[in-house]
Amino acid sequence: MDERLAKQLEFALTIDKEKNILRQTHLSSHGRRENDAEHAWHMAVMAYLLKEYANEPVDIAKVMIMCLIHDIVEIEAGDTYAYDEASHADKKEREDAAKEKIFSILPDDQKRELTALFDEFEEGLSAEARFAKAMDNVQPLILNNSNGGSDWREHKNTYAQVYGRHSGTRAGSEKLFEYTDSVINKHVEDGNILKPE
Amino acid sequence: MDERLAKQLEFALTIDKEKNILRQTHLSSHGRRENDAEHAWHMAVMAYLLKEYANEPVDIAKVMIMCLIHDIVEIEAGDTYAYDEASHADKKEREDAAKEKIFSILPDDQKRELTALFDEFEEGLSAEARFAKAMDNVQPLILNNSNGGSDWREHKNTYAQVYGRHSGTRAGSEKLFEYTDSVINKHVEDGNILKPE
Repeated sequence: MDERLAKQLEFALTIDKEKNILRQTHLSSHGRRENDAEHAWHMAVMAYLLKEYANEPVDIAKVMIMCLIHDIVEIEAGDTYAYDEASHADKKEREDAAKEKIFSILPDDQKRELTALFDEFEEGLSAEARFAKAMDNVQPLILNNSNGGSDWREHKNTYAQVYGRHSGTRAGSEKLFEYTDSVINKHVEDGNILKPE
Repeated sequence: MDERLAKQLEFALTIDKEKNILRQTHLSSHGRRENDAEHAWHMAVMAYLLKEYANEPVDIAKVMIMCLIHDIVEIEAGDTYAYDEASHADKKEREDAAKEKIFSILPDDQKRELTALFDEFEEGLSAEARFAKAMDNVQPLILNNSNGGSDWREHKNTYAQVYGRHSGTRAGSEKLFEYTDSVINKHVEDGNILKPE
């Protein structure tokens, strides 16, 4: 087998570990905790189905690959819960080291390509990145909403925390932000999200 | 919320169940059994990384969405193990009913689009379908190979069974078929796949 294919297959095998990285979100029907690979799959399918709601036209292949790889660094760096401020302090440092290590398994051209896609997503630098980020917010929201907001309740999340995260959806999709906003407000009323002071 | 978005979000929530459909393949490092959503995620990332090996040029967005949705009917119909001949007898009938039920949740235009993509994949009708099918073979092969062929050993798979399935990879990618073939031959030599008579 040639060296290029060997590197690509080694990368493919390495990312299998993403299936063992657990998130805080629970599957629908009060299921077990979701893992990163399932979350990425769900985001990519949703991106394809909901692309008509992107604020700007998007290259859907680019949105999908961003969705699929956006959590790959967590194989090395672990999942950082969206509302854990302490872990967020060194998140960038941990994830930068992980990114270098993981993408270096690939041939150089693909290392550069995937690193660039990863960074573009993280920084919300394009219409594709902003729409993929909207999926990163909407996907766990529909699960949590289906479970009566139990993930928010369990973590005693405040309106400021939840709104702070989900306001980012607006940059990718005004339409989906409207939906998000209505769901959040309902859960504030129901006491699943702690009310603003 | 308008009716169209409501249907799309209902579909998005329904397919969450794919994370509970277990396959016969085990994760690397002798892990637990893989589920359909993880398998689809892995296939789609691999399709993106290995697209240079497709026999014909492919629209990668189409390949990725085919990979992502190709097992969705199993939410209703269950997983049919690749080498279970009895279950394969009524697989098409079960899956056709499931396909109609699941895709009918979507707005009509998206029902038609996803049904067409699903059928195109199943029947290998395009370069994209044939390359996506190659991923459906290569993805479990790299996991099983990493586990010393334990999935084949456990099921006492014969060379004819394994080769029969994997020969389909050739229509999508000669290059990846060569790799597949060498892996299978090694596992025949090692006794993990039962030798041809």
